Amino acid sequence: MAEQRLGIIMHGVTGRMGTNQHLARSIAAIREAGGVALRSGDRVMPDPVLVGRNADKLRHLAEAYGVSRWTTDLNEALANTDDTVFFDAGTTTMRAGLLEQAIAAGKHIYCEKPSAVDLASALSAANTAKAAGIKHGVVQDKLFLPGLLKLKLLIDSGFFGRILSVRGEFGYWVFEGDWQPAQRPSWNYRLAEGGGIILDMLCHWRYVLDNLFGPVRSVNCIGANHIPERVDESGAAYRADADDAAYATFEIDGGIIAQINSSWCTRVRRDDLVTFHVDGTHGSAVAGPTGCKSQARVNTPKPVWNPDVPQSIDFYSTWQDVPDNSPAQNAFRAQWELFIRHVTEDGPFPWDLMAGAKGVQLAMAGLQSWRERRWIDIEPLRA
Amino acid sequence: MAEQRLGIIMHGVTGRMGTNQHLARSIAAIREAGGVALRSGDRVMPDPVLVGRNADKLRHLAEAYGVSRWTTDLNEALANTDDTVFFDAGTTTMRAGLLEQAIAAGKHIYCEKPSAVDLASALSAANTAKAAGIKHGVVQDKLFLPGLLKLKLLIDSGFFGRILSVRGEFGYWVFEGDWQPAQRPSWNYRLAEGGGIILDMLCHWRYVLDNLFGPVRSVNCIGANHIPERVDESGAAYRADADDAAYATFEIDGGIIAQINSSWCTRVRRDDLVTFHVDGTHGSAVAGPTGCKSQARVNTPKPVWNPDVPQSIDFYSTWQDVPDNSPAQNAFRAQWELFIRHVTEDGPFPWDLMAGAKGVQLAMAGLQSWRERRWIDIEPLRA
Amino acid sequence: MAEQRLGIIMHGVTGRMGTNQHLARSIAAIREAGGVALRSGDRVMPDPVLVGRNADKLRHLAEAYGVSRWTTDLNEALANTDDTVFFDAGTTTMRAGLLEQAIAAGKHIYCEKPSAVDLASALSAANTAKAAGIKHGVVQDKLFLPGLLKLKLLIDSGFFGRILSVRGEFGYWVFEGDWQPAQRPSWNYRLAEGGGIILDMLCHWRYVLDNLFGPVRSVNCIGANHIPERVDESGAAYRADADDAAYATFEIDGGIIAQINSSWCTRVRRDDLVTFHVDGTHGSAVAGPTGCKSQARVNTPKPVWNPDVPQSIDFYSTWQDVPDNSPAQNAFRAQWELFIRHVTEDGPFPWDLMAGAKGVQLAMAGLQSWRERRWIDIEPLRA
Amino acid sequence: MAEQRLGIIMHGVTGRMGTNQHLARSIAAIREAGGVALRSGDRVMPDPVLVGRNADKLRHLAEAYGVSRWTTDLNEALANTDDTVFFDAGTTTMRAGLLEQAIAAGKHIYCEKPSAVDLASALSAANTAKAAGIKHGVVQDKLFLPGLLKLKLLIDSGFFGRILSVRGEFGYWVFEGDWQPAQRPSWNYRLAEGGGIILDMLCHWRYVLDNLFGPVRSVNCIGANHIPERVDESGAAYRADADDAAYATFEIDGGIIAQINSSWCTRVRRDDLVTFHVDGTHGSAVAGPTGCKSQARVNTPKPVWNPDVPQSIDFYSTWQDVPDNSPAQNAFRAQWELFIRHVTEDGPFPWDLMAGAKGVQLAMAGLQSWRERRWIDIEPLRA
Repeated sequence: MAEQRLGIIMHGVTGRMGTNQHLARSIAAIREAGGVALRSGDRVMPDPVLVGRNADKLRHLAEAYGVSRWTTDLNEALANTDDTVFFDAGTTTMRAGLLEQAIAAGKHIYCEKPSAVDLASALSAANTAKAAGIKHGVVQDKLFLPGLLKLKLLIDSGFFGRILSVRGEFGYWVFEGDWQPAQRPSWNYRLAEGGGIILDMLCHWRYVLDNLFGPVRSVNCIGANHIPERVDESGAAYRADADDAAYATFEIDGGIIAQINSSWCTRVRRDDLVTFHVDGTHGSAVAGPTGCKSQARVNTPKPVWNPDVPQSIDFYSTWQDVPDNSPAQNAFRAQWELFIRHVTEDGPFPWDLMAGAKGVQLAMAGLQSWRERRWIDIEPLRA
Repeated sequence: MAEQRLGIIMHGVTGRMGTNQHLARSIAAIREAGGVALRSGDRVMPDPVLVGRNADKLRHLAEAYGVSRWTTDLNEALANTDDTVFFDAGTTTMRAGLLEQAIAAGKHIYCEKPSAVDLASALSAANTAKAAGIKHGVVQDKLFLPGLLKLKLLIDSGFFGRILSVRGEFGYWVFEGDWQPAQRPSWNYRLAEGGGIILDMLCHWRYVLDNLFGPVRSVNCIGANHIPERVDESGAAYRADADDAAYATFEIDGGIIAQINSSWCTRVRRDDLVTFHVDGTHGSAVAGPTGCKSQARVNTPKPVWNPDVPQSIDFYSTWQDVPDNSPAQNAFRAQWELFIRHVTEDGPFPWDLMAGAKGVQLAMAGLQSWRERRWIDIEPLRA
Repeated sequence: MAEQRLGIIMHGVTGRMGTNQHLARSIAAIREAGGVALRSGDRVMPDPVLVGRNADKLRHLAEAYGVSRWTTDLNEALANTDDTVFFDAGTTTMRAGLLEQAIAAGKHIYCEKPSAVDLASALSAANTAKAAGIKHGVVQDKLFLPGLLKLKLLIDSGFFGRILSVRGEFGYWVFEGDWQPAQRPSWNYRLAEGGGIILDMLCHWRYVLDNLFGPVRSVNCIGANHIPERVDESGAAYRADADDAAYATFEIDGGIIAQINSSWCTRVRRDDLVTFHVDGTHGSAVAGPTGCKSQARVNTPKPVWNPDVPQSIDFYSTWQDVPDNSPAQNAFRAQWELFIRHVTEDGPFPWDLMAGAKGVQLAMAGLQSWRERRWIDIEPLRA
Repeated sequence: MAEQRLGIIMHGVTGRMGTNQHLARSIAAIREAGGVALRSGDRVMPDPVLVGRNADKLRHLAEAYGVSRWTTDLNEALANTDDTVFFDAGTTTMRAGLLEQAIAAGKHIYCEKPSAVDLASALSAANTAKAAGIKHGVVQDKLFLPGLLKLKLLIDSGFFGRILSVRGEFGYWVFEGDWQPAQRPSWNYRLAEGGGIILDMLCHWRYVLDNLFGPVRSVNCIGANHIPERVDESGAAYRADADDAAYATFEIDGGIIAQINSSWCTRVRRDDLVTFHVDGTHGSAVAGPTGCKSQARVNTPKPVWNPDVPQSIDFYSTWQDVPDNSPAQNAFRAQWELFIRHVTEDGPFPWDLMAGAKGVQLAMAGLQSWRERRWIDIEPLRA
């Protein structure tokens, strides 16, 4: 059982998601576990070099996670032919340019979503990658959440019969930053810095819907800027001009309707921060990040509208847990392992830069729908 | 304390809602309680005459609820000048015609919603009523539900700060009728008989939104025909061609967005059959038919998205009941008492046939939005 | 809406089941409710005459349940041409003879099971009834138990996928009568008086299996006489020579295996006195007399055999109630109403004396299997 | 206190049971505890050599459990006269041949059940062992389960009075492998590889019944192949032709009837994966792998069949736990310690290859009963 090395340029892992999910819980965890096992029995050990602008932060991260290499010089890093993968989790506004640069340097590409802030750039990156013959992938972490894996299981098992509709609710109250600090970075609320919930979340909904229910055919979306002034990390008030809520409806191939609200301005009264409620002829389910509850049609209570008496049915206890029959892995690490096997042994990895571009496409269509106050059809993307 | 008599022609009370809500729990209950008290201290005793086509049913109802008068001859009933109020809870398709006939006979009008199956007829009825100088009203029962009264209380108290958004979920699973009987009549699912959830429910949402949150400015709605075949009361399969779900978004004056799903094809995982989730800068609430839960901003938990660990916050126990400090009355009876006082002592009753027409207007706009795949603005109605 | 009278000779209603189920909860209850409604809107009022040997008991019963007629003279009762139905719930050993006598008198027949104590007599009664052109039926009450109706609903809904197997457990500890009185009559434990659990229960299992799962093709049964001495109602010890437990397996058409234990010598650790556990490819259910729990395959936990640690799965909370969506009626009354409509308006009633003979056939085959220590095939019955 | 060494050739410990139960929790645990204590105060330290075909797996296991010796050459291992015990937990189809080979090499024998895949081979191994004068034993782990030890305690204490019957339910749902992976190896479901639940489980039931209740006198068994197609470890569909459920009844010396179902196609609604429900004149008990509940006759509720009201007795809370007064040991380790003392100080060990042959005999008789559709008597085995 031989061990291979895989050199990975990790750019932009000083942010919260980059550090926690991609460095700590993915690459460092994989290294600690002895690398990724291949079909041949060999193992691949990722060997990252951290790249960013802040030397102090990089040194600190490298030490904390047992990484020996870091640099503030991206060009130098790209010039090292021993590092064959470029990963980006930096700011969204710079992403497309960085990807083009790394592809030109012959690297394989893996990156966070959205892959660009506009469709043309996202498509260009996908086409450049294809023409270069390199391998490429985009993070689509929600597909690997235990709760969504359970939902996938229910779908594959035929539990739902014919699926009729999906109701999604994503969000929670992000504090304004005045009387208690906000729990998200302020750039999320500034358009000029790539903020906005439509750009952020519709990228996710694209791959969730496409992969679980079928291709998205059209979108209707209205955004809102519910809280126009917030207080930033330094305590200064700022104009929060980005959309902080989006009320969207999607038509899925085959007649399924998906209605999904996304909001940073809502207080949660549901099972978890995101829930997908799926109704089918034979059963329904509500999935969150980790859990999933189901109700088969034979267990469906028969309520009658009677305003005179308090409801006698408990609409929570009438659902049943979908058990944790398979041990769950961190969603980001699971996808990292698949991408590493994609690069080293050509394992399957359908979520490439074209899939990433589809996410951007849906976000752009959502913004267009908001502007034009109408449904926008989602055309097939051509290379 | 004198007692006045008020003769009321009750048409179409053999249906479920007519019998239970209007006859049993409203008129019969008012009669049993000794009538309606006026400001003067006098009491008004309603004296109904039941009108319909099925003599057996009418006789049975009359006996069951201690009503002495019934007839199958509507013209005869309308000719009786001692009966000054005409009430209709019969089939929707006949309503507008009956109202015009009763207005022509000089009666005051009270009726179920929708007041017509198209806007022109609804407006015509309203204008005819206005021209005739009679008093008129339309049932808007949901405003009188204990849970919505509590929500109104929260709004009036300033609890919400600035209201940002409303999420409504209405519905439950209506059985298809094949392997267990349906709990709603089959005409609800046939377009030709006045069925369809958009026509049914958008009339309600109009007055709920208008009265609680502000005038509805525009609507975006997509309907669905999720279950195209059902089995009727006699066990025969039929083509259920009416919309059985509607996914709608509304813009309210002042920038509030209301997103409301209505469906007869969803399994309930929420507090009750209908819930309105209202988010404001200072607090949120979720109201159902009887209960209402609130969460003030000081009680708002601060979740962080962390896919690695199961959610540690219980998003149900973090809400607080709005108590039943005022005894609740049947919603239908409450509105009947107001209408009786409107007729007899000119008490306030803002929900007239023009308000009824507004409900029909919103339903028609919802259907148009579905057809044209765009937002439809709601113009002010002119007499 | 006219009212018809139906004269019914009720024989042998002084026993526990006869009094409680057939007289009190069926005929008396139907009379109190104003009779049985027919399709035409007419109602049929049963007019019973109680027949038995003990005049005191009959008089007492008649008074208690508002019945005006009773007699100890069966021939006189049979001679009254105004009473067209003969019902028997008397001792099993006399049944077949009584049925023949009543058929000869031109009566329609309704009776408890078993319809005879041997197959030849049961078949003869069925054939005589057929030849006479009268209407006839046998009590098959368990089909009308709410829990079994729910099980039927699950089957009809396709919940189980392909049904694989049925496990039935019937029984409870019948006290021996020595240190505390027995809760069943002593004749149940004496062969000469028609006792024995195989004769009693296999009649039930025949119609339960035939009607729910498919025709029974063969039976393998071993009986036991676990408690050979008991104490009777008078405090005297007696030789209890009848089988008091039966361990049987059945092959059902289509490959389903049903394994059913029946015992009066077992202490109950299950949901109820009788339970049917059904396993199918897509789900399982356990039904009792009133309740039914289900587990869909998506909710199926994945246990691993690990003798080192206590079981971590709760194998009870992982099941979900099938709700009481339809109000349940007394099982005996429900079948009485169907039989009365069968007699008066030719309503459907598939459980005739030939179905009763099938029950006897299975009981006889069970006894033969026990004697011959082998599987016995169940041949189609020929008239 | 001297320490002896006992050289043990461990063959076939790379499988799940071999690794977990025999290597990790038995031999490695015994070594860690300083060996097995003898009556003399001396201790015996097992010194295993791992034998198998896959060098990588053996090396990995040896390292993981601190074992210094391993080899892929069985003949070499058998030739080493310092290793006096041969243990086999490899594939069932090869077992009998290996045992003969090891006996010929003069080794003592300890092995998993079944000791062979047919009775002649099992008997031959037993006779060869006897003739060779070596010591021999077969794993009969379920006897050492804490729950069955408690059951044994109840039997020995006279709690049951006269035992009447035993109901056994073994099994759980083994996933088909299509939409979620199976939790048992695919060879269990292939006849050619020694699969089949009758061969697997009737070996267990023989020693459980023989040791707890008395000698098994006859068996009646019907197998089933409920799920004929499954998906294997590599994701490929295969023809699962082995019996995956068995419905068996046994007659025990003295008139006890034991009815035991075994199934990999049932969803569990009982206390644990296997339960034995024992009814006696003075009390009943239900034992699982770890727990045991009892109900004495004085605690027996007196139910009456009344289909009109939901059951008022809770048939679970009316049982009482048999407490864990003695600390439980791993079942496999407990038996290993007894066998080591059997070899080294001639301690008692009644579960020899003849007992192993009895298990195979019952399995073969079960299969014969299924084929011939009749009871099969269990003749005494002659050497």
